[in-house]
Amino acid sequence: MSEHVVVIGAVALGPKAACRFKRIRQDAKVTLIDRDDIFSYGGCGIPYYVSGDVSESNQLRTTAFHMVRDEPFFRDIKGVDVLSSTEATQIDRVNKQVHIKNLRTGEESVLSYDQLVIGTGATPRKLNLPGEDLENVYYVGNMHDAEKIKQGITEGRYSKAVVVGAGFIGLEMAEAFSDMWGIETTVVEIFDQILPRMCSPVLAKMGQKHMEEQGVTFKLGQTVSAIIGDGKAEKVVIADGEIEADLVIISAGVIPNDKLARECGLACSERGGILVDETMRTSDPLIFSGGDCAIIKNAVDGSPLFLPMGSMANRQGRVIGGNLAGRNEKFPPAAGSWCVKIFEKAMAGTGMSLGAAKQAGFDAISVTLIMADRAHFYPEKDMMSLELVVDKSNRRVLGIQGLSAGGDAMVGRINAVAAIMKFQPTIEDVSNLEVAYSPPFASAMDVLNSVANMADNALAGMNHGHGPDTFAQLWTDRDSGQYCFLDVRENADAEPFLKKYPEHWHNVPQGEIMRRHEEIPRDKKLVLVCNTGGRSYEAQIMLDALGFEEVLNTQGGMAMIKAYGVDI
Amino acid sequence: MSEHVVVIGAVALGPKAACRFKRIRQDAKVTLIDRDDIFSYGGCGIPYYVSGDVSESNQLRTTAFHMVRDEPFFRDIKGVDVLSSTEATQIDRVNKQVHIKNLRTGEESVLSYDQLVIGTGATPRKLNLPGEDLENVYYVGNMHDAEKIKQGITEGRYSKAVVVGAGFIGLEMAEAFSDMWGIETTVVEIFDQILPRMCSPVLAKMGQKHMEEQGVTFKLGQTVSAIIGDGKAEKVVIADGEIEADLVIISAGVIPNDKLARECGLACSERGGILVDETMRTSDPLIFSGGDCAIIKNAVDGSPLFLPMGSMANRQGRVIGGNLAGRNEKFPPAAGSWCVKIFEKAMAGTGMSLGAAKQAGFDAISVTLIMADRAHFYPEKDMMSLELVVDKSNRRVLGIQGLSAGGDAMVGRINAVAAIMKFQPTIEDVSNLEVAYSPPFASAMDVLNSVANMADNALAGMNHGHGPDTFAQLWTDRDSGQYCFLDVRENADAEPFLKKYPEHWHNVPQGEIMRRHEEIPRDKKLVLVCNTGGRSYEAQIMLDALGFEEVLNTQGGMAMIKAYGVDI
Repeated sequence: MSEHVVVIGAVALGPKAACRFKRIRQDAKVTLIDRDDIFSYGGCGIPYYVSGDVSESNQLRTTAFHMVRDEPFFRDIKGVDVLSSTEATQIDRVNKQVHIKNLRTGEESVLSYDQLVIGTGATPRKLNLPGEDLENVYYVGNMHDAEKIKQGITEGRYSKAVVVGAGFIGLEMAEAFSDMWGIETTVVEIFDQILPRMCSPVLAKMGQKHMEEQGVTFKLGQTVSAIIGDGKAEKVVIADGEIEADLVIISAGVIPNDKLARECGLACSERGGILVDETMRTSDPLIFSGGDCAIIKNAVDGSPLFLPMGSMANRQGRVIGGNLAGRNEKFPPAAGSWCVKIFEKAMAGTGMSLGAAKQAGFDAISVTLIMADRAHFYPEKDMMSLELVVDKSNRRVLGIQGLSAGGDAMVGRINAVAAIMKFQPTIEDVSNLEVAYSPPFASAMDVLNSVANMADNALAGMNHGHGPDTFAQLWTDRDSGQYCFLDVRENADAEPFLKKYPEHWHNVPQGEIMRRHEEIPRDKKLVLVCNTGGRSYEAQIMLDALGFEEVLNTQGGMAMIKAYGVDI
Repeated sequence: MSEHVVVIGAVALGPKAACRFKRIRQDAKVTLIDRDDIFSYGGCGIPYYVSGDVSESNQLRTTAFHMVRDEPFFRDIKGVDVLSSTEATQIDRVNKQVHIKNLRTGEESVLSYDQLVIGTGATPRKLNLPGEDLENVYYVGNMHDAEKIKQGITEGRYSKAVVVGAGFIGLEMAEAFSDMWGIETTVVEIFDQILPRMCSPVLAKMGQKHMEEQGVTFKLGQTVSAIIGDGKAEKVVIADGEIEADLVIISAGVIPNDKLARECGLACSERGGILVDETMRTSDPLIFSGGDCAIIKNAVDGSPLFLPMGSMANRQGRVIGGNLAGRNEKFPPAAGSWCVKIFEKAMAGTGMSLGAAKQAGFDAISVTLIMADRAHFYPEKDMMSLELVVDKSNRRVLGIQGLSAGGDAMVGRINAVAAIMKFQPTIEDVSNLEVAYSPPFASAMDVLNSVANMADNALAGMNHGHGPDTFAQLWTDRDSGQYCFLDVRENADAEPFLKKYPEHWHNVPQGEIMRRHEEIPRDKKLVLVCNTGGRSYEAQIMLDALGFEEVLNTQGGMAMIKAYGVDI
């Protein structure tokens, strides 16, 4: 009898593992089980289906050549049997059997396996709020939710949406509602920034400001205590008060579906998720797992990593497929790369944010640079903000995050760093990273090299100062008399500020510092400002050499001060 | 007396090394020498100045904040003295002196140095053609040439241009002439492809075809024997005949300017260029070199590498600046990353092309994939072609090259591989490269992961066949009766070809192969075709398992067959 591989879960990892194995082992039998009747879909595409960018829900289930990935597709094209609307209720490892239940008929039966794959995915985290069972409250857990939301939108039933959770899906849904359908949208987030843990408060604020300019409202640092309504959602209650809402989306993260694995005694993480080794095997060598239900290793510090992303599931699925066929493939530790489109901008990152790095015990600092994403003389370009997180003790790069209107350029820079994260890169690896150069695509000293150079200068004590967040604090405190805000740009650039703030704003162009430094007060902390932080860095070096004692460079300069939203 | 650092050459590496050193060592004296009166410019921007994308030549010499990098700029802003129009005629290493000559006055003098940097760059390779001294024949060696060319163009003096050399600058100049000024442009290249050595003939042909569609004419495999004209260029003579031309650009590569270094006994390569170690020191520890006059190490095979690019010069300049100041910075071996915009498409690569790898002695193969550069259901996307070159013996990745309309996405993928080249990656490192995923920016199984998976399948013998070049040969030979061209797409896709080529084109959709395989001839070589090579790969696996003996998958499918220009 031919070998039988059973795969539980048919969204991303399951189909990939099943089909890959079958391609290598045409003689084997593969059975793919899913409790849903819609399977093998791109769940990450749901916000784009809701927005209308993707017009039909089936498009998320079709191949690049427009064929729907349904049961006949898997049978005829892939040679894989699918049992949909079928739940795996128990794994009997001793007898190598999976107990299954047909959810249409209620019929129960047993499937024997030679090898098994658990790709049961994750479930949206329930908040257990009063009122969360009201109509028009959704968790966006699957295509059925997506179709209901989309139907309500196209029927014009919603005018005010509240999205709970400012993670990727929350922000993408907020954009979908607001941008394409003109629905008044408020995002409520328990942390005091968007994309908590993914990036710094500074980058988060810049992203938030962009979304606010596009009409989205944010309520940060706010817990939802209840959803109120008569049958349907009408209001969302937060500490600040009540927000009217006829549509509520709860996207507060996901929880790995490890129940089946746990019940049959496979090793699982205390915090949830099936533990796998680098071959994606569970504690039972005949059982593999991966995707949103599994826990892998963090490339930065070796800690357990839960990274529920479709890309991880696909790549891991292929490794499992090979290993089912007797290969010895390994899935490397991951850094946690991410990207998200928010209206006209993109945010992206890999590795740890400054906050996450500190929480993980690293002696970390970060530097933030804003610079054109290609030759500054090239006509079409965008300003890219990059924040590099490094370990002060050993110069290791722990992570990088950024924001830019040029999405592909932004993601491309992040991917280059993501590629080396498992090699434990140092600052020098990014300083000299071989970015391909031509004026339409990069600078001769690219923004990526430059942010690493900046980190090098910060660790050497050559570039000292602050970002726009600290600048905002100092500026608020400007009447204390402690600070001299020194604009080192040419007079024409400084003049509007000199006029508006004659008592606080001062101007000595960088090129005139050597002959005019006696005009600069020595009894105040000098807060240096230029367009992007480059000239003020050079001015800071000059003033340091001239013996000025407290010279603070405003990294990112006016460009980042404005993007951050300082009222100046 | 403060330390004196002398830097010879003030285009890219020189200014970067000088200014970086000065920032670290504010007390030191730095003198920057250049024989030209225009210096510190972005030479790579010349084609964009000629095209008009960059309106003024000074823009290539200005900072991001619009300040021209002239003598006062270096003095006041950077603290660096510049001697322009000054030639270094001799280096006296015993006395640590540079002999210089003021080219304006003829005055000769001597500069003592404590440390020296040689950044003398490269000179366009002269072809020594009869007629190359005629008016309107240019080598594009510096800003003066660029200004003359631009002036002639804006005065409407040129209507027919010939560009000799289909490297980066040649192609960029051809685009500038043709796209922005409507000048009838012919590119002559001695090799039988554009971008020789940089990419495969297949990708080259795809790029060439795109440029031809935009109106550029190519004469490949042709040597220029003379330029003819009465005072001014009128015709360019090649084996094929004569090409009318009132403007001739010769861009046949560059030669490192190592004369000064050679004459003072510094170690140089036999093939030209100053040898440096990983700290960018020459054979004299007090003398550094880098940029277009230096030879570094190839990350792929450790061989000497001449890589004249502004980005290399800038990054190396910073390392030199640090080392001049007593740091111990290292510049890593390079893979040779490149990118070039050709009209609406971009081509890019890193590491070795298949041809270069074979020439270097590797047992190399390549695979070529064409696939959307983001989720196939996302509305805005481009098809990206990627060719991965790998070593059959040890699965090492030797290089990657590609072409796409989405330039930033294209370059971003190349940069991700470039980043790991010095770590000697294997196929698995690219298969599992952690590309950040979100539908607007990547596929769940990204094109970059996929091309590595394809290489894995090729080495495993699972994916066997050919690219569009071999397909073109087989198709030409279709009347031989040796081949069955089997279209495995759905009937609707195959139908136009079935009608047009009833004797040669056959169709069994992939999903029907298991029940219809008896229709398929067993006495012919099966040439499988689908849209992009994915379904035909799966069909090939099925047919292999069914015992068909010669099954050939057409990698890249109809998409690449068309982009390559097969007449079908």
